[in-house]
This record gives sequence, C-alpha cells and structure tokens, in this order.
Amino acid sequence: MTTWEQVAGDSRYTQVLDKGFVGLIDYMGDDAAIVQAARVSYGAGTKSVNEDRGLIRYLMRNSHSTPFEMVEFKFHLKMPIFVMRQHVRHRMASINEYSGRYSVMTDEFYIPEQSRLQAQSRDNKQGSGAQLHGQELEMALNTIKRVSAENYLDYLSLINDEEGRNYNLGERQGLARELARMVLPLNNYTELYWKIDLKNLFHYLNLRVDSHAQMEIQQLALPIAEHVKRICPIAWEAFEDYWQQATTVSRLEKNLLQALIEFSSTQSVGFGESYETMCQKAGGKAQLQSEFGMSKREMAEFERQWKLA
Amino acid sequence: MTTWEQVAGDSRYTQVLDKGFVGLIDYMGDDAAIVQAARVSYGAGTKSVNEDRGLIRYLMRNSHSTPFEMVEFKFHLKMPIFVMRQHVRHRMASINEYSGRYSVMTDEFYIPEQSRLQAQSRDNKQGSGAQLHGQELEMALNTIKRVSAENYLDYLSLINDEEGRNYNLGERQGLARELARMVLPLNNYTELYWKIDLKNLFHYLNLRVDSHAQMEIQQLALPIAEHVKRICPIAWEAFEDYWQQATTVSRLEKNLLQALIEFSSTQSVGFGESYETMCQKAGGKAQLQSEFGMSKREMAEFERQWKLA
Amino acid sequence: MTTWEQVAGDSRYTQVLDKGFVGLIDYMGDDAAIVQAARVSYGAGTKSVNEDRGLIRYLMRNSHSTPFEMVEFKFHLKMPIFVMRQHVRHRMASINEYSGRYSVMTDEFYIPEQSRLQAQSRDNKQGSGAQLHGQELEMALNTIKRVSAENYLDYLSLINDEEGRNYNLGERQGLARELARMVLPLNNYTELYWKIDLKNLFHYLNLRVDSHAQMEIQQLALPIAEHVKRICPIAWEAFEDYWQQATTVSRLEKNLLQALIEFSSTQSVGFGESYETMCQKAGGKAQLQSEFGMSKREMAEFERQWKLA
Amino acid sequence: MTTWEQVAGDSRYTQVLDKGFVGLIDYMGDDAAIVQAARVSYGAGTKSVNEDRGLIRYLMRNSHSTPFEMVEFKFHLKMPIFVMRQHVRHRMASINEYSGRYSVMTDEFYIPEQSRLQAQSRDNKQGSGAQLHGQELEMALNTIKRVSAENYLDYLSLINDEEGRNYNLGERQGLARELARMVLPLNNYTELYWKIDLKNLFHYLNLRVDSHAQMEIQQLALPIAEHVKRICPIAWEAFEDYWQQATTVSRLEKNLLQALIEFSSTQSVGFGESYETMCQKAGGKAQLQSEFGMSKREMAEFERQWKLA
Repeated sequence: MTTWEQVAGDSRYTQVLDKGFVGLIDYMGDDAAIVQAARVSYGAGTKSVNEDRGLIRYLMRNSHSTPFEMVEFKFHLKMPIFVMRQHVRHRMASINEYSGRYSVMTDEFYIPEQSRLQAQSRDNKQGSGAQLHGQELEMALNTIKRVSAENYLDYLSLINDEEGRNYNLGERQGLARELARMVLPLNNYTELYWKIDLKNLFHYLNLRVDSHAQMEIQQLALPIAEHVKRICPIAWEAFEDYWQQATTVSRLEKNLLQALIEFSSTQSVGFGESYETMCQKAGGKAQLQSEFGMSKREMAEFERQWKLA
Repeated sequence: MTTWEQVAGDSRYTQVLDKGFVGLIDYMGDDAAIVQAARVSYGAGTKSVNEDRGLIRYLMRNSHSTPFEMVEFKFHLKMPIFVMRQHVRHRMASINEYSGRYSVMTDEFYIPEQSRLQAQSRDNKQGSGAQLHGQELEMALNTIKRVSAENYLDYLSLINDEEGRNYNLGERQGLARELARMVLPLNNYTELYWKIDLKNLFHYLNLRVDSHAQMEIQQLALPIAEHVKRICPIAWEAFEDYWQQATTVSRLEKNLLQALIEFSSTQSVGFGESYETMCQKAGGKAQLQSEFGMSKREMAEFERQWKLA
Repeated sequence: MTTWEQVAGDSRYTQVLDKGFVGLIDYMGDDAAIVQAARVSYGAGTKSVNEDRGLIRYLMRNSHSTPFEMVEFKFHLKMPIFVMRQHVRHRMASINEYSGRYSVMTDEFYIPEQSRLQAQSRDNKQGSGAQLHGQELEMALNTIKRVSAENYLDYLSLINDEEGRNYNLGERQGLARELARMVLPLNNYTELYWKIDLKNLFHYLNLRVDSHAQMEIQQLALPIAEHVKRICPIAWEAFEDYWQQATTVSRLEKNLLQALIEFSSTQSVGFGESYETMCQKAGGKAQLQSEFGMSKREMAEFERQWKLA
Repeated sequence: MTTWEQVAGDSRYTQVLDKGFVGLIDYMGDDAAIVQAARVSYGAGTKSVNEDRGLIRYLMRNSHSTPFEMVEFKFHLKMPIFVMRQHVRHRMASINEYSGRYSVMTDEFYIPEQSRLQAQSRDNKQGSGAQLHGQELEMALNTIKRVSAENYLDYLSLINDEEGRNYNLGERQGLARELARMVLPLNNYTELYWKIDLKNLFHYLNLRVDSHAQMEIQQLALPIAEHVKRICPIAWEAFEDYWQQATTVSRLEKNLLQALIEFSSTQSVGFGESYETMCQKAGGKAQLQSEFGMSKREMAEFERQWKLA
C-alpha cells in the first residue's frame, strides 16, 4: 500500500484525513474540450473567450450535460474502507483497488481528530452533532485506537506473520489472506485508481461536498474539487452558480412564492407582511401550508430560504 | 414490422403520430417497490399509506434516486427514424430494434399533419414557429409525401422487389438490404422493444415531455408518461412537484430574489416596486443584472418567472 | 436488519453462509421475453418451442447479448461486508443497502465453518489452500469469534447503547453511528435489494460461480443461479454450453492445436504422439512453446486442457 | 459540418469511405497506465518491460478488464447516418453529434464504390454477396446518386434555401429544420466527437472489425484500431491473441474435441481418421453430432475450424 510519506513530496498529491490522500495522476481536456464538443452540435465560427464562457454557462444552466463528459480525470486515492463503501456507489467511474486477497492489508487505520468525535445528531438521523467531551471523548478515542491495534495484531496472527501473536502453536500454515482480512475494522485504509468524466464528477461533488455527506468523504471530495476548479475554471464556476449553489424550488413553493409576490406587488405591502397576512387569511400557517400542498418541513425550509421565520 | 392496425385492439397500446405506437408490454414494481427498497436503508416498521407517500416525496425532494431504479418498464415502440435517433441517446436503457439488414423496411413513413408543418422558429434556433400556410404548406406536404413514395419505390427497385421499377434490366440479383436502405428518408418508421427503470425514465420524460423537445418525441413521451402515472401515481406526483414542474433558481437569481425580498420587507414596499427601486439605485436594469452576475437572457427569464416584466 | 429466521419460512428465500440469504423478490420476463425481443430484429412468424430454443442458443453462441437484457431480476440479499465489497463492483445493477448512518448495525457476524478455515494457497496468490488443523484451526476460529463479539461490544459502547460497556463514564451522548461503525470488522453482515438484468447477471455468475472466486461469494451466487435456471431454463443451458463451461482458445493455442491435428492426420499418428514428436523436432517443449508465442503457464494449461501432460 | 478537405492536411485524421473521416483528437494513458492500475491490485515492486508485457497479457487472458478502462480515447468522426445508427448502440461512450435541429444538414452523401455494390448474400440474411454487374450495377449507382441529389434539393426547398426549387411560391417562411430533415436519406453524413475507454473500445473493435459487421462500419473501425495499436501496442497484441483472434470452444465442442484426442492418442490413429471412425461407430455424422448435443451448423463449423471437412 502506498503511504502518504511516499507521495508527500509530489505536488500532485494532497493529504486527506490522517493517512489518506488525493493525487491527480492524469487528465484529458479542459474548458476548451467542453466548448469543442458543444460546438459540433450548435454550429461553429471563431468565438472569443468570452463567448466560450457564455456557452459553458448556457450548457450548465440548461442541463446539456454531454459536453462535460468530454473531460476525464484520473486520481490516485487512499481512504478508509467505510469511506470507500460510499465512494464506490458512483457507478459511472472506473476503479482499480488494492486487493486484500492478493496482498497483506497494512497497519494503517483512520483515527479521527478529537474535534471529529461527535455525538449522534438529534435532528438528523444520519448525521453528527456536538463534539464529545471529557471522559466520553477519551473513551471513544481510546476505543478506536485500541480496536485498530488489537485487530491488526489478530490479523497478523491469523496469517502467521511473525509480528502477530504466537500462542505457542508450533508449526503453522497461516489462514488465507482473503479470510483473515475479515477481522479488520472498517477504518482500515485502502487505495485505488479512480477515473471519471467531468459530468459524473460534478454529480459526485454535488453530493459529497455537501454538509449532509459524511465529513470523511467531504474531506476526500474537497481536494478533488480543487483540481477541477484549477483545470476547468469556467465549468467549475458554472457548476457552482447553476448546480451546487442553486436551489430547486418545487412546484408548490413556486406557487406560494408567486402568490406572495403578487400579493405584495398588487397590495403594495412588504413581502414579510404579505406572508403574515396570507397566513392569517388562510386561518394560520398550517392552513396556508396545506392549501399549497406542502409538508410542515417544506414550509419551515421555505421560511428559512426566504427569511420569513 | 408491426403495424398500428395489428395492435389497435390491444388496450396496452396507444397510437402515436400517424403510424407509430406506444405499448406497455410488461413492468415490475410500483410505488410499493420504491418504498420497500428505501426502507432497507432508512429502517423499517409498519407504516401507513400516508407515510409511504411522505417517504416517496422525501426521496424525490432530496434526489435520493436509487429506490426509483427498482421499478422497471418494458415498452413496444414504433416511431420514425429521426425520432429514434433522439430516443437512442438515452443510454441507460435496453433496446432491440428492427433490423434493416435482416428484414425489408416497410412502406411506412411519417407524414405530419398540416398543423405541424411549422416554419423555423425565429427566436429558437432548434425549434418550430408559426404554421405554414397557403401554397407553401401544400408544397411542403406534397414534398414529404412524394419523397416518401418515390424513395420507397427506389428502395424496392434496388432490392429487386417485384413492386419496384423494372427498368428492363433483365436478370437481377438485388442489392443487399443493408445497402439499399440508405436511400430511405429519415421519416421511415422503425420498431423496437425498450426497457428502462423508473429513475432513468423520469430523466427521459423530464427532457422529452418538454416544450423544447421536438414535438414528435413529445408525442411519443406522453403515452409513456400516462403509463407511469397509472402504475406509480405517488412517484409521478412527486416527480411533477419536485422535478418536472420545479424550477432551478441559480445562485445568482437566489441572491437577487433574497435581496428583493429583504428590501421589500424592511422598507415595507411592494415587491414589484422594490425591483424598480433597486434597478434605479443600480443605475438601470443592465447595471443591476451585472451586479448580480446575470446575463441579459437570465434577467429576462427572472422577470418572466416572477412576473416583474 | 432482516434476520434469516424472519424469512426462513418464505419459499423464495435460501440461507447463505451462516446468517445470510438470497431471496428472489420479483422478476420480469423469462425465455419467451428473450425470444420476443430478438424476433423484432430478426423477423417474425409463428415459431415452435424448438425454434425458440434454437434462437436463444444462436444468440448466446454469437454473443448477441441485448435480448438477454430484457429479463430482469430483483433479489433481497444478506451477506458479510467483505463479500458486499466484491458484489458492489458489478456496476450495471441497482442497489439499496442498509445504512449504518441511519440505523444501528446488528450483532451478526460471519463465522466460517471449520472446513472453510483454510490456509493461504501456495500456488494461487489470491486463493485458499488446505484446511487448517489442530491448534491453529482452533485459534483461528476463536479469534474470529472473539473479535466479532468484542468489537460489537465496543461499537455498542461507543453509541452508548445500554448493552455496551459502561466504564462509569457518567452522562454520555453516544458517538454518531456513522463514526462508531468504523470499529466493526468486515465480517459484519449487511443487507440490500439488488436488481439486475439477465445479461449482466450472466456476467456476474460467470465470474462468481467460479472456482477462482472467493468461496463466500460463490455461496451467494449459487442460489441466484438456481433462480435463473428455473425461470429461464433454455437461456441457462445456453449460458452453460456457450459461456460458462466453454473455453476460450487463444490465437496461439489454436495455431498449435491446428498444427497438431494436421500433423496427426497427415502422418497418421496418434495425437499424443504427434505432440511428443513436434516437441522433439522443435528441440524441446520450451522451444515449441516459444515458437507458438506461448508462456510456460499457457503451455501447461494447454497440456492440461487437452490431456497431453 | 467539417469536410474531409478541411482536415486532410492534419496527420491525426484518416479518410473513411468517400467523405467521412476518423481523427484522434486526444487520449489519456497507454500500456503503462494499464500496468499502473493493475499493480495497485496485485502488488508492486520494480518490474522490467518484459514483466509489464506479461502482466498485460495475463489481464487479457483472464478477462481482468478493469485496468483497460484506465486508457481513454477521444475521436472526431464523420460517417453516414445509417452507420451512425449502428455506432451509437455502444452505450458506454460519450457522444456529441451535429444537430439537424440547430444547423443545416450539408450536401454530403455516401456514394458507395462500384465494388461495394453487392447483391444480398444468399446464405447470410444480414450480409452482402457478389458484386452487381452490368445494367443492374449502373442502375443501383445511379439510383443512389439521384436520390441523394434530388432529396437534398427537396430539403433545401423545404427550408427555403435559395439553392432549392422555387415553385413560384411567392413569400415563404421555410419549414423548420427539425422537420425538413426528415426527407434526407440515410446516406447523408453526420459528424461527432466520441470518447470511449479502451475496454469498451476493444468490445467495439471486436464487433466492428469483423467480417460479419457491415463493411461501412468496418471501414470506420479500421483506422480507429490503428490508433489503438500505435498507442497501446502490447494491449493491442494481447487483444488480438486472446480475444479478437481467439476462438470460443463451447462445452459441446470441447467434449467432442477431447473425445477425438483421446481416441487418437489411445488408438494411435491419426486425428482425421479418428473423426471418421467415431462418426461410423455412432451410425453417421448426424448421430455423432446429436450425441454431443450439437446443431448441424455447429458441426459444420467444428469441421471447418479443425479442418475435418
């Protein structure tokens, strides 16, 4: 397994978590490749840089996504197995991963920083909340460290590595690596090459550089995003403006927003006041919400989005 | 090639254009299958129908799309080749199509209705505009009819079909079908089986039941949509509310919208008036637009969307 | 997590390993669906059952694989995480998996049977060899059991489950599930819905019902294969005859085989003797091998395949 | 539309058919990239060039195909629409194609050379046979030329291009391009950018550089193959040896081949004689064939393959 130390001097690599990394090994194409492919559909002619920017932004705004497939990235990645289990779900990508059947898994385990040892979130069933503290923090950290060290020793013992425990067993054969690995915990590190086109990478980044993604995969996605930003600056900007930082306004919200705007405009009253008035007229917020087919949670998000709370 | 007449009595089939059809041959799963798959991730417990609806809507609203892959549809379709050329671009689907190498292409060509004989759109480079009229309408219709008939006769002549022209050629071998077909125009009909999962079908329908899609593929997509609506009514409703009829508000538009709402609320003036005031303060609409990083076209769409024009 | 006990009475389910299962939840199409799709390409006409069999075998023999995509299977599966890590690599499939972020992972770990506790294979870098015995067998089994039990206790302690260790920590928040799971070993069980078409399932089965596949995924693949065999008996038989149990003879081997056949036929000597003579003429087996561009390993496989060793 | 003349001086481009071309625009990776990705799975160590060759051949021989996905090619292609209809069926590729909705289709049609004007094959339902001759050849060529010219004139008339027919129609609007194109025959040329990885390109080349493929797509595939051969010479050689020029021997054929070899070896009679004897013993060739579960066609192929006819 490649260690961070082995690649630390290579400017293409960035450290991720405690022992992982992101390295951009190769890529094909940039903003110009997107434009080139799009122009075959939309017609040619010499265009200034400014028009290229306009074209890329037009493609992104209108979800004409195929020209973004013309740019390809190849990364060398190292991450804990539980992160890899999320990473691999992006199917439109090519993967070659370190094999625990062929090779011995190494003594590298993800040990979170103290600030990351967070409690279960109370309102988000899949998320993390406040940092642990005091004795619980210490216990958590020690448990993760102890399990990593102990399980690795068990793994070595099973495969009959001399660093493992002896148990005075006499002559030993060593359990097959493909079996012995089953005692390794999910924070053990793995390594892979990963190739993906820009369209699918934008999908990945939209999901994984997101506050709802598990922090560890966010950490992985961030340096990947930096490479995209550097190589395709115009596409990246368009991605931020029209996708990542854009908001989808549902049919229901749009109806409510339009009704509020109309009320405010025709009655010449402020937008916030319009909302209050419409709630009152409906007989309360719950009634207004139900009139527009929205759930309580959607109504709360609507208020937060448009600062009505 | 299957004709519309052969399937017209079969309730699974709907006529499309003049000689095409959509037939739902088989499907697997429905709203319950989406819920079943989602619950394996989110945890179980007996849930009422109402909660199933909430779950499906939650999945759609948050782009948790994999459970929608659990529903599968298989269609028998017939459409002109130029429509098939668009249809086939949806790669996440399975296709078996009539082969012009194996079989003789049949004398079926799409002849548009008069109302569809529209001029090139002036503002939309890829669209249709006003209906043709008078002599031009007649010429267009006659040309399409004549080309279809003449080319088919040429095709038959090439393959040495007795219905073709004789030319007094004496003994003939007949050109290979794979070659002869090259003289057929793009309105010749083809036939296929098409299998696709609901997630990818929603992508298809979002693009193809859309006023920017070519009318002929819209006509094909509509009865497909009707089948989805009937078999997965809750997923369909969620698709309409959170995807098809939702609006993506870009980062730029969101900033402007929030600024307008804040101005209106804090200054207690109507929303429309707020817009006018902000335009004036910026030194004109073009300045406001540029302040928020928007293009002229985006600004126009913004005004149209929120009825500010 | 669904336990084997919960589904044991359901005839659609089969137990796999100690706590896993394969359940066929739904499917669409069978041998007739393959024929139906193929006939749209190759032309129609009423055909007898016998001709359907011939058509399916023809498709398989000639790698006309798209009609096999028209059959779809949906399984409910339970397997250890290290098996899931192999399973998920088949990208042309749909997956919804139990989430350790949302839900508590359960106390179910794969404990191999004693006969499966095999040593590392000496000749196959990725495989298993002879069964362990005596004290080493006992140690291996105990280690896997102990790690499973201890790590689960650590997991419960981290999430502050009352079944975990107390450590007299006073008030506790409980580490987020998404973090705590990292101490679970790779033999912990997971559960999923899995949908795949027959073409891609044949790829899967060809790789996974194979002596080079890890035994645990073979065990999973076998009942899946049984379902395919039952639902598509003709396609299954064709798969066995023309794919799974067929042999690829390389250009090099084909040249050698043809040379041997020619020598045997023209010289009227037995095939085995022909091989010996040709080796001698070339100056030894290594020379013959090199003449035909083969590696030592290929030559050995050639001898084994055609019983020349 | 890009013409062949515009790119003829560019060494990356090769002419295909009469007006088409293949241009390699960009690529990422080569033989070394395959090795790099494979080594992450199989373990490292400094390896000589010779061992790299062995590894690539090992991967190909054992269908370990994922490392071949690490090489990516981007082509600029021009081909007739009926060829494009076959080309587009390879789904694991990225395409941006010239749009007949946005742009005017150009006056470029595929006119086959005289030697290509072949009759329908008598034994191959999807293939071409002997060349046409005399008057039929002339008629075929003239028909294709005439249809191309006439239909293009009709197309121009419909879109109200000044080169079209006037018909003295007075003021005209011009039919929308998206509609007018339906009168163009399938030999009209189209243009595209096409990006594909080496694994999927090998699939493509295996099918399309094949005597069963339509000649026109073979012509397209050949210069594509030349690029692959030049950039990845070791992978190409492995592809030829273990895939393209390899033979799949079915379970049935293998059984027969092994029986013949055994008979020849144990009875010390020539291979050809063994076949005859076994046929006689079975009561005839049809009986032997049926004993081994083979069809008549398979038996004929078996005889041809091993020179027994």
